[in-house]
Amino acid sequence: MTFLEQLAEALPDGALVTDPDIVEGYRYDRTDWVQPGQPVGVAFATTTEHVAAAVKVAAAHRVPIVPRGAGSSLCGGASAIDGALVLCLERMDRILDIDPVDQMAVVEPGVINADLSTAVGDQGLFYPPDPASQTFCSIGGNVATNAGGLCCVKYGVTRDYVLGLEVVLADGTVIETGRRTIKGVAGYDLTQLLVGSEGTLGIVTRVRVRLRPAPSGASTMVAFFPTAAAAGDAVAAIARSGLQLSLLEIMDRATVGVVDDWKHMGLDRDAAALLLAQSDSPEPLRAEEVERAATLCDQAGASYTAFTSDPAEAEALLQARRLAGPAIERLGEAIWDDVGVPRSRVPELIARIEEVAERREVRVFTFGHAGDGNLHPLFSVPRGDEDARARTLEAFDEVVEIALELGGTITGEHGVGRIKRKFLAAEVGTANLEVQRTIKRALDPAGILNPGRAL
Amino acid sequence: MTFLEQLAEALPDGALVTDPDIVEGYRYDRTDWVQPGQPVGVAFATTTEHVAAAVKVAAAHRVPIVPRGAGSSLCGGASAIDGALVLCLERMDRILDIDPVDQMAVVEPGVINADLSTAVGDQGLFYPPDPASQTFCSIGGNVATNAGGLCCVKYGVTRDYVLGLEVVLADGTVIETGRRTIKGVAGYDLTQLLVGSEGTLGIVTRVRVRLRPAPSGASTMVAFFPTAAAAGDAVAAIARSGLQLSLLEIMDRATVGVVDDWKHMGLDRDAAALLLAQSDSPEPLRAEEVERAATLCDQAGASYTAFTSDPAEAEALLQARRLAGPAIERLGEAIWDDVGVPRSRVPELIARIEEVAERREVRVFTFGHAGDGNLHPLFSVPRGDEDARARTLEAFDEVVEIALELGGTITGEHGVGRIKRKFLAAEVGTANLEVQRTIKRALDPAGILNPGRAL
Repeated sequence: MTFLEQLAEALPDGALVTDPDIVEGYRYDRTDWVQPGQPVGVAFATTTEHVAAAVKVAAAHRVPIVPRGAGSSLCGGASAIDGALVLCLERMDRILDIDPVDQMAVVEPGVINADLSTAVGDQGLFYPPDPASQTFCSIGGNVATNAGGLCCVKYGVTRDYVLGLEVVLADGTVIETGRRTIKGVAGYDLTQLLVGSEGTLGIVTRVRVRLRPAPSGASTMVAFFPTAAAAGDAVAAIARSGLQLSLLEIMDRATVGVVDDWKHMGLDRDAAALLLAQSDSPEPLRAEEVERAATLCDQAGASYTAFTSDPAEAEALLQARRLAGPAIERLGEAIWDDVGVPRSRVPELIARIEEVAERREVRVFTFGHAGDGNLHPLFSVPRGDEDARARTLEAFDEVVEIALELGGTITGEHGVGRIKRKFLAAEVGTANLEVQRTIKRALDPAGILNPGRAL
Repeated sequence: MTFLEQLAEALPDGALVTDPDIVEGYRYDRTDWVQPGQPVGVAFATTTEHVAAAVKVAAAHRVPIVPRGAGSSLCGGASAIDGALVLCLERMDRILDIDPVDQMAVVEPGVINADLSTAVGDQGLFYPPDPASQTFCSIGGNVATNAGGLCCVKYGVTRDYVLGLEVVLADGTVIETGRRTIKGVAGYDLTQLLVGSEGTLGIVTRVRVRLRPAPSGASTMVAFFPTAAAAGDAVAAIARSGLQLSLLEIMDRATVGVVDDWKHMGLDRDAAALLLAQSDSPEPLRAEEVERAATLCDQAGASYTAFTSDPAEAEALLQARRLAGPAIERLGEAIWDDVGVPRSRVPELIARIEEVAERREVRVFTFGHAGDGNLHPLFSVPRGDEDARARTLEAFDEVVEIALELGGTITGEHGVGRIKRKFLAAEVGTANLEVQRTIKRALDPAGILNPGRAL
């Protein structure tokens, strides 16, 4: 039997799709500036057994597998590969358990991040990881990339909330990792090895996450600065102050402008940078904390600061940040970068991104998680302008190299995927990379799991 | 040349010690109820190059290596092996950098945990992981075991604070892992794989840790309960309440009694259990939080509650908890257990430990990190009583099995080491354990790094 015949037999009727019109919709992820390959089909799993069965057949035929959740990868992590099977987990979307005493939930990988947040919120609980894509990204993808988000600055990233996994290995074996307890040190932490491994070591079919008590509300501050350096000084001062903000975001002048163009929010378009901060500490602390943050911004040279404890006003301010990506994506082809630096180097990073954009005559919008030193320079290319596109890809590479020069990382939260492999050795070193490859070879000797990604 | 000749040549004068009197002091760790082997010598490293050189010579001769920091392992992790080289890192004890803006420190593995805490505290910073052994355990050992501590309930464990490592691999290669940034997802997270691997995948020679702003103080509460079940109910109620306590410890009647016998602290010896809680939130929140915790204890049936914001009074209460181990160790041979359960099962765990001790006629003291569900049943055996010792080891095993039955873990924070390997497959499953062994074989094919530990 051919691979597809055998696979069709191993799966329920209708689970394997080869109709080109449908397959086309599962070739691309959100990194559409890299061209995907042509897969042989898409298998829609609804159970762990389907995933295991599909992997076993693929292993027997040495057919590569591209695991796929919501397809929201910004690093080409779910972009199809020629001759591969796309193994789609979007239909494994059940929340299986929410436990308010032990503060845990068990979910399938296709659950949308915001749906989990809402479901646990109904029980007074909180699942912190909140990527800007939270309304359309899935937990499986969050685990695969160790996704971050806006409230990482206080609460940490996906890794910090994954207690255990069910995973299908490269030979179709199903293992469970992790535990039901808060703490545990029994053996190597395979959970932590798998989180962030971008589907190259196993396919996650179930996730046990840790929850927290929901905060009772938030106070919000906005500050505009005449220079990016002044905004950076404010970030450093806030870091030093010991304030436990739950959000500390930055947008540069270009980003403020493009959001205001679209939504007419009355933002100060003359400012070089905007900082947005929240505290979700219990009352009355949170109001004091954002006031203190505002004072530190004033001292760093802010031209305007304001704070509010009104949820509607706060939501409007947060909208400005959340709309940055979509506003820029409207302008043309959007090429997302994602770099991190020690937070003391944020002003320098912003200045150097501006210099690169000017010198290379490309359009860039810089915003992101100032409190973590994790910025998203988002390049915009007029559709069809191949010259601008070429200059932009050079600028993209240069920004990644600048992050490394500043002691930073080539990717803060989006992942290496297809697009940043060439930089990985420069960040981690060749001996470290060889250890990673040794682990990959040991766990996936035939190299069928999402090949050409992550490493 | 023999192994020892070649090793002596590779190291500075005096670094290799074979004098039996000195070697004897490096055979045992704090798990002295398991008999160590007889090593061929002890190598005292003062640089990464020494560690790499020693590993290369050992690899060439296939001599096993037992890496050792302060020797405070409670799972036999640093217990010597027949014919092995003990590679002692206690002289690599420099704090290399403390960065207050990026809130990081870089240390050598031999730095004592409390010394790091003091050094960063002088700069207004805080290194949270605080094992009860913090005055004599070293950071390298903390990393090897992913050590916990008292304030984990709010701040997490060692793993959560390790940003990067320098590690000597089984062939003497030196790699760096991790990053200088708060976030980062470049490649597999080798840092997280190495943390908790008990020296079986590599020898840590440098650690970059994340710091936090130091809390401004703490409020403290103590509550006595007529039954362990009532104390357990209070723990569950506190968990549900959303209170962010920085410490939530329990001591059973036997433990309260033995501490009071020793130090005459005026504790309520009739109570079945004592709960100790702290909040280190900013004022005025922390006083309110411990008051709320006290109210929840009252509602759960506490016979007496009290709270204080006076540091001296709080320190006296914490002393009672910190002295539990030493107080019991004075009585005879001390056999530490370390199990974790979902925190909802803590009362059941305590009741079943009591039942086992009664039925098997052994003496046990139970205390630990109630807020994490991580308890330390500490068995005491009269020295020389071989019958009691045999009954105790059976009770020890039974308690570990009970933890598994309750959905828990065989080790919450001490590690698997030598003493819990037989339980590991029952916790993680044979397929998971095989993955762990595959990784071990891939990274240490000759099996020279701390063999017979962790897996």
